[in-house]
Amino acid sequence: MSKECVFCRIIGGTLPSCKVFEDDDTIAFMDINPATKGHTLVIPKSHHEAIMDTPADVLEKVIVTARKIAIAQKKALNAAGINVTQANGALAGQIIGHIHFHVIPRFENDNHSWSRPQGKYDRDDEMESFADRIRNDLE
Amino acid sequence: MSKECVFCRIIGGTLPSCKVFEDDDTIAFMDINPATKGHTLVIPKSHHEAIMDTPADVLEKVIVTARKIAIAQKKALNAAGINVTQANGALAGQIIGHIHFHVIPRFENDNHSWSRPQGKYDRDDEMESFADRIRNDLE
Repeated sequence: MSKECVFCRIIGGTLPSCKVFEDDDTIAFMDINPATKGHTLVIPKSHHEAIMDTPADVLEKVIVTARKIAIAQKKALNAAGINVTQANGALAGQIIGHIHFHVIPRFENDNHSWSRPQGKYDRDDEMESFADRIRNDLE
Repeated sequence: MSKECVFCRIIGGTLPSCKVFEDDDTIAFMDINPATKGHTLVIPKSHHEAIMDTPADVLEKVIVTARKIAIAQKKALNAAGINVTQANGALAGQIIGHIHFHVIPRFENDNHSWSRPQGKYDRDDEMESFADRIRNDLE
């Protein structure tokens, strides 16, 4: 629990939120600036900043709640698709420093898109060299 | 296992991939059209299309592997941030019908961005009505 954290204050009840679901370890509530209508945030009750800092068992609980919300959004809102996204670090777009998963229902003509650049590696062996570096730092 | 599924063929070894990690239930391999260099895909070995169709215990294993990759990417590539994203349904941007999490390392000036529209609800009670619909369809 962090006194300065907006999401911890929502969890503690000192900031209002439009809650959709709550269990012992997680809560889900509406994003007040939704990418699409129905956009819901799923967070653990314990304070962790990034996915890298979040214990595996906490993360398991959060993703299971995200799944529950996705199932309900599809059914309740007749969503044609769902995006689940998560940002770690300001440069990646993280604004609140308490891990959260966005569960975003998608609809025809919802004007929501992500520019997903289709990049390339410069040389044939470059992808392999990146893979090697990642492999070497696996814990 | 689906014979037509590209990712099942990668798992089965009949299509090549640049594998980064593998355990009993999941594999991680390099995206050949990376959003940024180091972009890795994490999938379950069992075939499920969307997060809604994926059993909770399978999903838990996939997110724990995604976390492992994020930790390694940050360390190995000195990433300034990490995005974890997941699309369900063609309209949401899903191309391969086998659930996958993108783990995307972020760097200064990586030219990668998502237009994340900051929407609004039309009326004060509209958010509450969307929340109600989702709540009513929670399983």
